[in-house]
Amino acid sequence: MKRSPNLTHPRRMLQALGGEAISPPPIWLMRQAGRYLPEYRATRTQAGGFLDLCYRPDLAAEVTLQPIRRYGFDAAILFADILIVPDALGRRVRFLEGEGPQLEPLRTRDDIARLDRKASAAKYAIIAETVQRLRQDLPSETTLIGFCGAPWTVATYMIGGAGSSDQAAARTFAYRDPEGFQQLIDVLVETSADYLAGQVAAGADALQIFDSWAGNLPEDEYRRWIIAPTKALMAALQARGVKCPVIGFPRGNPLHLDEYLAATGVAAIGCDTTVTLATMKSLAAKTTVQGNLDPLLLVAGGGRMDARIDELVGALRERPFVFNLGHGIVPETPPEHVARLVDRVRR
Amino acid sequence: MKRSPNLTHPRRMLQALGGEAISPPPIWLMRQAGRYLPEYRATRTQAGGFLDLCYRPDLAAEVTLQPIRRYGFDAAILFADILIVPDALGRRVRFLEGEGPQLEPLRTRDDIARLDRKASAAKYAIIAETVQRLRQDLPSETTLIGFCGAPWTVATYMIGGAGSSDQAAARTFAYRDPEGFQQLIDVLVETSADYLAGQVAAGADALQIFDSWAGNLPEDEYRRWIIAPTKALMAALQARGVKCPVIGFPRGNPLHLDEYLAATGVAAIGCDTTVTLATMKSLAAKTTVQGNLDPLLLVAGGGRMDARIDELVGALRERPFVFNLGHGIVPETPPEHVARLVDRVRR
Repeated sequence: MKRSPNLTHPRRMLQALGGEAISPPPIWLMRQAGRYLPEYRATRTQAGGFLDLCYRPDLAAEVTLQPIRRYGFDAAILFADILIVPDALGRRVRFLEGEGPQLEPLRTRDDIARLDRKASAAKYAIIAETVQRLRQDLPSETTLIGFCGAPWTVATYMIGGAGSSDQAAARTFAYRDPEGFQQLIDVLVETSADYLAGQVAAGADALQIFDSWAGNLPEDEYRRWIIAPTKALMAALQARGVKCPVIGFPRGNPLHLDEYLAATGVAAIGCDTTVTLATMKSLAAKTTVQGNLDPLLLVAGGGRMDARIDELVGALRERPFVFNLGHGIVPETPPEHVARLVDRVRR
Repeated sequence: MKRSPNLTHPRRMLQALGGEAISPPPIWLMRQAGRYLPEYRATRTQAGGFLDLCYRPDLAAEVTLQPIRRYGFDAAILFADILIVPDALGRRVRFLEGEGPQLEPLRTRDDIARLDRKASAAKYAIIAETVQRLRQDLPSETTLIGFCGAPWTVATYMIGGAGSSDQAAARTFAYRDPEGFQQLIDVLVETSADYLAGQVAAGADALQIFDSWAGNLPEDEYRRWIIAPTKALMAALQARGVKCPVIGFPRGNPLHLDEYLAATGVAAIGCDTTVTLATMKSLAAKTTVQGNLDPLLLVAGGGRMDARIDELVGALRERPFVFNLGHGIVPETPPEHVARLVDRVRR
């Protein structure tokens, strides 16, 4: 299916997001700037904490560019973190070495009422500066992707105070006080739209919304806290004049992808590792799909990785498809496996 | 759909597992014997470690009976742990207070070759003694469910040395050395069949296979490490003359439930919280379904819990259905919410 493709545009990734089948498919990898790269680890030592790195436009731009230089990916993704938003809203966020992020947990409606949307502008402006630098420094054929966490996923960290495998704190809060939880979601929708619109104004030409913790919700909760807020965020972006393509990535539970797509109107669906090829092909008849190689297969490498790459590329050859992983690169990934992957997709 | 129902049998749960639509549906809850109950916590103090409790037939039978006395559930599930199997095979398993289980991780094929199936019989006999006591002490109308972890899920703990949200260690092992991983699976299939057959010989009249960590696997890996080993375990049970109904519970990724059911031939499918009502209804046209109230909705209680109970019971009224949670009861659950749930299902 072709949706208003801009055939004169030199960016292959944007062509794919516009609905074209591109051969070979454009490729980028979630968390492609990161600890598996020695040059990242070297730059990382120049910043204090992890958030300091995100708030240093020179360093954040540098680490964003590193995998583009090394592998020539079709897209660069802004180096930042989904917890920039709670940090900008005035919640204390810390990244402890070797542990996940820690936040001062939100407990009450008063905590929600105190979230400071106005104060967020200063920190969002720093991230926008990184985007500006990137748009200047990136090759013209490289698509620049901005991003944020989806309201639900960001809320799970804000309420839980940390990542968790079942998001029990946020899910329980949402059951006990759905109206209070909706107030938090509403704030996150509006501030995320501000944040993303700022990234687009600074030069991002596509966006991705990461809903990393969408997979544990029962169907009613999924509709209420995944689909509805993403739809609201898309509307808030439109209200701010944002026109670039948006990739939705609700990780977990493939049963809901059709409904998510229809309700939110995203330009592309990111597919996690558990989405079957049959589901990806069926989605790709309606939209652009992105994914879904297992990051752990990239760690293992070898013939099984090659075979799965061929299977993915072969199955989606005639469809609008962006090659990616089903989740972020892990630190143990050998950089030479990434080179082999890129070669294989492009040969 | 009716499959060889035994209408003279007094156990409503077994009637449902035989394919009958029973009204009101039989009810039991995963982890119904546990820390949310004060009487459990009192008994727990009489044993040293958690595994000591599992290996004390008098105490294990007592805690199994506690929720039956309190709520009159239609089924009791043997109090034990899925890590009995690695412990019986000679791997050191420890449960540290307030943390999850810790195991000495399996690293090599030599570690796998050293697993001691013969030694396991002594520990399995202790668990079988608990089953014998239970069959004597339970009301005759109460179904007694034996269980084990599925080979994949047990393997993830054995290789990872602990629980993890992504099972990265086992998934990477399986990518790097699928033949070695298959050797581990083969051992687990055979020893689990020994273990379950012993439970049935001792008086269990149904079995459940818990594949708690099935949800993160890509489709090929799901077929290879979830469906094929469960099918092999079912065949190994048949080879040992086990005829009682088996409930399969592959948690995560509802996309594969039809294929899992068709390939393994289990009598019932346990549905986690993410399975939609539409999927449950469709499965229930072919088999008995069990599930899937969110355990966190049971923590929250109130009108939303009541509404979801009514929705589940209403939607599956004409089908073979066993009411349960979509995952285990959490320790924060107020016991009075469980009483309200049971009343509501039965009214």
